[in-house]
Amino acid sequence: MNLRVVLVSPRNPLNIGAAARAMSNFGVFELRLVNAYNVAFLEAKSAVKASKILINARGFESVADAVADCSLIVGTTSIGNRALEHPLRRLETGGRIIAKKLASAPVALLFGSEKFGLTNEDMSYCHWLMRIPSREEHGSMNLGQAVAVCLYEIIRNPAAVRAKPEIKRAASAEEMERVTALLEEVLEHSGYVHARVEGSTKMKIRRLVRRMGLNSHDAEVWLGMLRQIKWKLLN
Amino acid sequence: MNLRVVLVSPRNPLNIGAAARAMSNFGVFELRLVNAYNVAFLEAKSAVKASKILINARGFESVADAVADCSLIVGTTSIGNRALEHPLRRLETGGRIIAKKLASAPVALLFGSEKFGLTNEDMSYCHWLMRIPSREEHGSMNLGQAVAVCLYEIIRNPAAVRAKPEIKRAASAEEMERVTALLEEVLEHSGYVHARVEGSTKMKIRRLVRRMGLNSHDAEVWLGMLRQIKWKLLN
Repeated sequence: MNLRVVLVSPRNPLNIGAAARAMSNFGVFELRLVNAYNVAFLEAKSAVKASKILINARGFESVADAVADCSLIVGTTSIGNRALEHPLRRLETGGRIIAKKLASAPVALLFGSEKFGLTNEDMSYCHWLMRIPSREEHGSMNLGQAVAVCLYEIIRNPAAVRAKPEIKRAASAEEMERVTALLEEVLEHSGYVHARVEGSTKMKIRRLVRRMGLNSHDAEVWLGMLRQIKWKLLN
Repeated sequence: MNLRVVLVSPRNPLNIGAAARAMSNFGVFELRLVNAYNVAFLEAKSAVKASKILINARGFESVADAVADCSLIVGTTSIGNRALEHPLRRLETGGRIIAKKLASAPVALLFGSEKFGLTNEDMSYCHWLMRIPSREEHGSMNLGQAVAVCLYEIIRNPAAVRAKPEIKRAASAEEMERVTALLEEVLEHSGYVHARVEGSTKMKIRRLVRRMGLNSHDAEVWLGMLRQIKWKLLN
C-alpha cells in the first residue's frame, strides 16, 4: 500500500505504539515520525510487543523530508477555532480521494501532536486538510483511535454496502408452507383457531411465517418442534 | 442517540476508558458493562479524567439484562477460526443497517473481552455479527480502536462523499485570462516566447493556467507577483 502515516511531534510512546497497531490491523506498513521526542520514539521501538512497523519506522527532521516522495499530502485536524487557509474535507470525502490516488502514487497522511495538532507551518506542506466528523465540543480524538478511523475509511469498501451477508440458504416457499400447515394444525388442536374465523386466521399465520425470515435449516428445526408438539397434543 | 455500547467482560480499565472516549467523540452516551472485573470497572470510573459517560456507565450481571430494552442486538467479532452460527456482515454493510434501525429503536452493539472476544453464549443473544474488515493475520483490534471505528461507520454520512469541500470562490474566466495575459507578457519580456512559435506557446500557457485550479484570491496574488516581475524586467 502506497500510504505513509506521518506522526508529527508525537509525545507519548503508547500513542506511537497504538498508531502502529492500527496500521497493522488495516495493512498499512510505512510509519514516519517527524521531530518525535527521542525518548518517546526509542521507548516505543523498544517496547516488548513492538511491531515490525514500529521497528522499521523512520525518523525525520522536518515535514518536508518526511513527505518528499509523496505526491499527495493530507493533514488531519480537529479544526477547533483556527481559521484554516486550506480546503477542508470531511473524512468520508477525503478518504475516497486518497483511496483513488493510492492506486497511482504515494500519499502521506499527517497527524499532529496529541496536544496541539498540526502547526500552520506543518499544514503549509499539505494539499488539503481532513476532519473526522466527531463532536466539536469534545475536542480532539485519541491519536491511535484517529489513525484507526482514518485508515478504516481509506480501506473500507463502498461496494461492500451492497453485498449480501453470507447466510444460509433461505427457506423455499414449499418449506415455509409446510411450517405454516403444521403450525395451523397445532393451533387447531390447541383450540387457538376457531372454525368461524378459520380463513382469516390461516392467512395471518401464513404471513406470520413469511415474516420469520426462515432459512432452510431453521425450517427443519421448526418442523421437528411442531411435530413433537402435535404428537403431544394428540396423545 | 439510541445506541448502547455493551462491553462484555472487559479486563483493562484503560480500555474501558478508551471506549468511553471514543463514544464521546462520536456522540454516543450510553455505556453498559457486563461482568466487568469489579476492580477494572471501579478503577476506570474513578480515573481523574473519567468522562460523564464512564461515571454514568451501568453494570449488568448478564448479556440478557444488558440488552433487554434493545430491539436489535449486534455482536462484533474478529471472526478467527470459529465456525459462526450467525450471519456475518462486514462493518460497511452492518453499519448502514444499524444507522437505519437507530431512527426507530434502540440498538445494542456488543464487544467481547480483549483476549477472547464474545463467547458463543454471548453471541446467542445477537441477531447477527459484524466484522471490521481488518487483516486476519493481525488478530483482533485494540478495544478502544474497535469501538471508535464501529461508531465512526455508524455516524458517517454517505451523502458527505458527494459534498463539496468549503473552498474559496474559484477564479472566473476573466481572472484566469488576466493571469494568462500577464504571464505571457512576462515570458515575452524574458525571451521565453519566440515569435516563430508564439501561437502554440500561448495556448500551452493558457491551458497551464487553467490547470492551476486558481481561486479568486490566489489569482490576485499571482497578478501582483507577475506585475512586479514585469516591472523589474522593463526597468
